[in-house]
Amino acid sequence: MAFYIGIDIGGTNIKAGIVDELGNLLGTAQRPTGVGRPLTEIFRDISRTVDEALATSGLNRSDTSAAGAGCPGAVLPDRGLVVYNNNLGWHDVPLGPELSALLGLPVVVGNDANVAALGEAVAGCAKGASSAIIITLGTGVGCGVVLNGSIWTGWSSTASEFGHMVIVRDGRPCTCGRKGCLESYASATGLIALTREAMAAHPDSLMHRAEDVDGRTAFDAARAGDIVAQGVVDDYIDYLACGLANLINGLQPEVIGLGGGVAEQGEALFTPLREKVRRELYGGGGERSTRILPCTLGYQAGLIGAAMAAMQHLNKGDF
Amino acid sequence: MAFYIGIDIGGTNIKAGIVDELGNLLGTAQRPTGVGRPLTEIFRDISRTVDEALATSGLNRSDTSAAGAGCPGAVLPDRGLVVYNNNLGWHDVPLGPELSALLGLPVVVGNDANVAALGEAVAGCAKGASSAIIITLGTGVGCGVVLNGSIWTGWSSTASEFGHMVIVRDGRPCTCGRKGCLESYASATGLIALTREAMAAHPDSLMHRAEDVDGRTAFDAARAGDIVAQGVVDDYIDYLACGLANLINGLQPEVIGLGGGVAEQGEALFTPLREKVRRELYGGGGERSTRILPCTLGYQAGLIGAAMAAMQHLNKGDF
Repeated sequence: MAFYIGIDIGGTNIKAGIVDELGNLLGTAQRPTGVGRPLTEIFRDISRTVDEALATSGLNRSDTSAAGAGCPGAVLPDRGLVVYNNNLGWHDVPLGPELSALLGLPVVVGNDANVAALGEAVAGCAKGASSAIIITLGTGVGCGVVLNGSIWTGWSSTASEFGHMVIVRDGRPCTCGRKGCLESYASATGLIALTREAMAAHPDSLMHRAEDVDGRTAFDAARAGDIVAQGVVDDYIDYLACGLANLINGLQPEVIGLGGGVAEQGEALFTPLREKVRRELYGGGGERSTRILPCTLGYQAGLIGAAMAAMQHLNKGDF
Repeated sequence: MAFYIGIDIGGTNIKAGIVDELGNLLGTAQRPTGVGRPLTEIFRDISRTVDEALATSGLNRSDTSAAGAGCPGAVLPDRGLVVYNNNLGWHDVPLGPELSALLGLPVVVGNDANVAALGEAVAGCAKGASSAIIITLGTGVGCGVVLNGSIWTGWSSTASEFGHMVIVRDGRPCTCGRKGCLESYASATGLIALTREAMAAHPDSLMHRAEDVDGRTAFDAARAGDIVAQGVVDDYIDYLACGLANLINGLQPEVIGLGGGVAEQGEALFTPLREKVRRELYGGGGERSTRILPCTLGYQAGLIGAAMAAMQHLNKGDF
């Protein structure tokens, strides 16, 4: 059995995990990232976190074959380079070579959404599927695309930004500069905007009882019977269904996995979503339907996926 | 050198071509399809057309290793089955097995837009590129996706319908049943609709001098200095750019090739289109830009692509 190290470098925490060749997570550890510190300190802490994860799994560095690291932002996997990461304030950081020197292992680097998608494809909601698109409904709409079992990063290595697919031309301004992107409507932020608009128009709505308006407010009030809130939920699901139908018409992945805060609404989201998507598919969607499923791995997806990316890289002789 | 047969079965003509392993077209032939005749007659004529193409290339059937056939509609390549083809009036026609028996060769079947995309990727505008999306701007917006050198057909074998990606939610009704699809705006039909609307609002426009309103009317009048017509052209290119930017943000193919009648406008289309797309790319589109190019092969793309699909199928041991 071969073992691989998965590393997730976020704006808040560094996480590390030890993963076997089947995608099983054997041990994990984490430490605060401490954004703003010198890079050498952060790298040293990544190395320590890896050692702690090894200790919890009862393995040594010499038992592992390669490591993968995911982080947000624009990453060039071929060169192990983090071009830009606004959470960490990184520009042109040679993360792959630096970690490789520290760990004494080949290291592959990827965008965090992409490696998490690979994790869900190998060991999570899309386990056994040959293709999957994993979408995170959080502050933004993150996306990772796995085709024929591998991450699709495109010609310039930064593909899979389907959150920045315009579905409402000249619609809501998006943080990316376009107007009407899927992210502007289908993110938790988009849901909150829809919620606030409906609240302003309907002072009697149960939604006003929420202490803070967040991505749960409309779903909670809808469950309590509030018709205006149900309208917000319906509108939100319409936008999301529009985006997913676009993706299925174009790519027909075997699975679309949804993660992030909004996906925690469970069947209140998934049941109407599947029905709305089905109605919009070209030619009925063909013989075999894309399954729309909740992600199952949470933060572990990034660790497992980073490790599996390292395994694939090694097996293809790409190091 | 190995040789392959490419067949294109359209609503008007059956075409056949002989292609070498490098994608060179060595000989072609064609006959009318004669839609409505018994299938046995049409199949017999396909076989005759293949023999005529062989004769023009100086080869025999025994010189060829496999054949590929493209036709419109929903096709299941795994079973060689044409599920539905409204041009030919076909339902569940086992085209692959029937042609295989007639030609005495393994036969692979594909959707015509998909095999044409492979042709452009192997020997046309995207020659040498590892990934390409080929879009035909005709009556509709056809699309074929080539990733890692192979046609992407998705889980249910009928993917690549990016013409049916909604870009204007609740916009123009599309023939597919959705509203606001890229096809409703970026097809020649969509361009004609924009042209007619502008003509109705501007009785003095030069566009009224056209005998018939078609996909050239607005471009021609714009070239002659008509400001209203230029506005139509600008709007049309805006819609198309929106769709292409969506595709690039998501997939970052190395090349997007545009074919069909509207693409014949050349740089009057491509120069402003490239600039508008560039402005809409996420994060500036990364280090390497997708090239947006005119298709170069015309009808030959379908023949070359069908033959190359047969070659790939044979080389992978998939027959």
